[in-house]
Amino acid sequence: MPSTADLYQDLIEELKTISLLESCGSLLSWDEQTHLPPQGTEHRANQLSLLAGLGHDRKTDPRLGDLISALEQEDLGPAEEPTSVNVRAARRRFDRATKLPKSLVQELSRVATLSQQAWVSARQASDFAEFQPWLSQIVALKQQEAEALGYDGGVPYDALLDDYEPGATTAEIAGVFSTLRDELVELVSAIADSAHTPDTRLLTRHYPQAAQRTFGLQAASAIGFDLDSGRLDIAAHPFCSGIGPGDCRLTTRYDESHFPGAFFGTLHEAGHGMYEQGLNAEAFGTAMGESTSLGIHESQSRMWENFVGRSLAFWKHFYPLAQSAFPAALSDAPLSDFHAAINVVEPSLIRVEADEVTYNLHIMLRFELEQQLLTGDLLPADVPAAWNESMQNYLGIKPEHDADGCLQDIHWSGGALGYFPTYALGNMYAAQLFQTAESALGSLDAEFAKGHFQPLKQWLNTNVHARGKQYAASELIQVVTGQPLSHKPLMQHLRQRFEELYSL
Amino acid sequence: MPSTADLYQDLIEELKTISLLESCGSLLSWDEQTHLPPQGTEHRANQLSLLAGLGHDRKTDPRLGDLISALEQEDLGPAEEPTSVNVRAARRRFDRATKLPKSLVQELSRVATLSQQAWVSARQASDFAEFQPWLSQIVALKQQEAEALGYDGGVPYDALLDDYEPGATTAEIAGVFSTLRDELVELVSAIADSAHTPDTRLLTRHYPQAAQRTFGLQAASAIGFDLDSGRLDIAAHPFCSGIGPGDCRLTTRYDESHFPGAFFGTLHEAGHGMYEQGLNAEAFGTAMGESTSLGIHESQSRMWENFVGRSLAFWKHFYPLAQSAFPAALSDAPLSDFHAAINVVEPSLIRVEADEVTYNLHIMLRFELEQQLLTGDLLPADVPAAWNESMQNYLGIKPEHDADGCLQDIHWSGGALGYFPTYALGNMYAAQLFQTAESALGSLDAEFAKGHFQPLKQWLNTNVHARGKQYAASELIQVVTGQPLSHKPLMQHLRQRFEELYSL
Repeated sequence: MPSTADLYQDLIEELKTISLLESCGSLLSWDEQTHLPPQGTEHRANQLSLLAGLGHDRKTDPRLGDLISALEQEDLGPAEEPTSVNVRAARRRFDRATKLPKSLVQELSRVATLSQQAWVSARQASDFAEFQPWLSQIVALKQQEAEALGYDGGVPYDALLDDYEPGATTAEIAGVFSTLRDELVELVSAIADSAHTPDTRLLTRHYPQAAQRTFGLQAASAIGFDLDSGRLDIAAHPFCSGIGPGDCRLTTRYDESHFPGAFFGTLHEAGHGMYEQGLNAEAFGTAMGESTSLGIHESQSRMWENFVGRSLAFWKHFYPLAQSAFPAALSDAPLSDFHAAINVVEPSLIRVEADEVTYNLHIMLRFELEQQLLTGDLLPADVPAAWNESMQNYLGIKPEHDADGCLQDIHWSGGALGYFPTYALGNMYAAQLFQTAESALGSLDAEFAKGHFQPLKQWLNTNVHARGKQYAASELIQVVTGQPLSHKPLMQHLRQRFEELYSL
Repeated sequence: MPSTADLYQDLIEELKTISLLESCGSLLSWDEQTHLPPQGTEHRANQLSLLAGLGHDRKTDPRLGDLISALEQEDLGPAEEPTSVNVRAARRRFDRATKLPKSLVQELSRVATLSQQAWVSARQASDFAEFQPWLSQIVALKQQEAEALGYDGGVPYDALLDDYEPGATTAEIAGVFSTLRDELVELVSAIADSAHTPDTRLLTRHYPQAAQRTFGLQAASAIGFDLDSGRLDIAAHPFCSGIGPGDCRLTTRYDESHFPGAFFGTLHEAGHGMYEQGLNAEAFGTAMGESTSLGIHESQSRMWENFVGRSLAFWKHFYPLAQSAFPAALSDAPLSDFHAAINVVEPSLIRVEADEVTYNLHIMLRFELEQQLLTGDLLPADVPAAWNESMQNYLGIKPEHDADGCLQDIHWSGGALGYFPTYALGNMYAAQLFQTAESALGSLDAEFAKGHFQPLKQWLNTNVHARGKQYAASELIQVVTGQPLSHKPLMQHLRQRFEELYSL
């Protein structure tokens, strides 16, 4: 009989091998988005498909299941001990992987690739009819996926959500969204009624790309993103990819006539990157060395982008540097004008360009439509009408074209149903964590104004990053903040910031 | 009993899978040399080691051997038929892979990694003593490798050479090198005695990096490198990596005070790249879709770099473009001065900076020392003295420091003994192929002067690239040129070019 320690060692080695293999795919995917020559796409798809297949074979290997089962018979210590955490997470992943028939996984992969191509074309032509049959296929396959995975309480959406935000439930999210929505709509309305209308034209002056890159890197580095363990490249759809220890890659896109896009995008991805860089490198490949959920991941990006990056204190330090970097655009603009401009609130059609207040309403709309699609209460053909009606209800505006409406996001075309809520969860988690950090560290504004971001970064390293998957997102929030998920800290943050900016 | 067609199909699928897996490693290696953050090296080594291990397991799988054996019992048609070519090459690779004990492969990989690190440090300090123990280990392991692979005629070097130039023998190369050396030494001497001394100072004026990159890409594209199927990046040690169909990557390095380095480096790598791009994409993963030898590969790079790129005709087209690209450096320099400068011949210490005439002497020196190291006639500790003596004999100069002598090349530190001769073979093959192309197409100078490079490129596509491994290098040269390997076309080319330039 092998000892528990031997069994555990075998498990860890296999888990690390699987992660190492997956990290090869991560690098290939990063390259696909940043450097791949146009004619290389087919070969890249073949490479990724091979690696995914090899990974899937290992993740569903019955010997892995036996190993996990054998360890589950042993005493692994308290639930938050690494041994327990890693075995529990291995069980979870093994069960999810083996519950899905290989034929369904392959069909989803195939349809998602074709569907994304159709989406690109449909979006360009703003032609929902072109995308609709693909959306129908995706929804049908995701319904099958939910059935195969299983769910409690008759809510198939729970099964999909669980892939992105382990342990979260549709009911819980719907509850907190509901209160948040009412208070947001009220705040948006108050802002709309305010006499203030910030002049944003200074943000669309000429910002040379090279200077944007240098300034963005300077800021990312200053807040704590380690450029010896990472880099910044250009991608059409910006993302952050943690390849592995010592290698985390950010991407952004530049528009020389629009300052905020690349800058706040870089801060956002740097926030994701600092989570990746803060993971325990020794534990790479195991749950203790992995981020705990997409919602917590998003809390890190949104905290650095918005809570820190759009604060007046941050710009007290960075604005003189920005004026040096972009003298033609900014030398005549006072800090207060700039700060008001980067915090303008107004209902808009495109989620990724939405301000901090209205952003969450874009998420709620998608969350509701996704649930209805999955239950069949909403047919894919009826999505444009439902979308436009919701936009009217939530934001008081309606897209003229589906390209600015239900065709704007890539997620559904790739099969990512259940993903959107993690964005709004991220905003709420960010507020809760930031409030707790300030309770522990004192007001951070004075530090930010001096260009000191280490106290917050180190607090996040200790309280969030280094813990890996030790706790599920909701548990982590409870452990760190002493409170369950709540919309209140977010609303407090938004009211404080925007009541001041708009003199409400 | 499965049919021959079924067996063959199984073989092809497995070979393609192995190549696809190896191509993932190629992309990771390319990234390591071009984009990897400094802290990511350990993780990258782990990724590459995993992929190499998975590849090795498949390449030595007894079931693969059984499949090859079964096919060898069948009638596969003439030797140059794809079926025969692919089965023969599969046998060759399987035998080589299985002859090497896994322990030796792993030890070589481990020692090569550490040895390269020691070489970098020893070269910086010009301290051979630091590198010597590593060279001793490498030589001992390569001796073991040669014994494990086996060789005829008592020449262990043949076993190593065969890895890079399949089918070539040490005796054959030594024979042709011997005649070539005598004639080269005579030509170098005649040039040294000539009254002409080209002024090369115009090549060390200021050449801005961005303009160098643009101009290099313009030239690479004009000669036929397809930028939709490839790209150009920066690397400390330039190389070309064919990742797979539609994806071939060149690298170069820029020195703003030295024009030829990046420009001819880019043309050189583009020559390699055009071979990769000219391979049959449908046959990817099989011998019919692979380059036949390093010597033939080098013939392509040297042909475009030297036979084309340093010709007067080439610059009749490109010099006005160069003057536009680098007005400050070149507007006052006549074409004749520029052309003389880029063709200056003089004995020098560093191989990669050597001119077209003396370059081959650098190779012969290494070829001789390598053989002696392998037989034990030369001890690693005695390499510096032997190197310096040979330099004196061949080129009449001696390095003051080992960094400019026996420590200059990376090859030995990485275990690549037997590689160097392919560089000089490449020069001879290039001359033979270029002479044959001109016999078939007529003088190409008039075409080059008009910026037309398609005739030569298409001739190479048909006669060399598309054939893959259909013929071994020596057979290919015989089939295409009607002659065996010969030093004569190279000497004809060199005499013609340099007798004119130096008025000999």
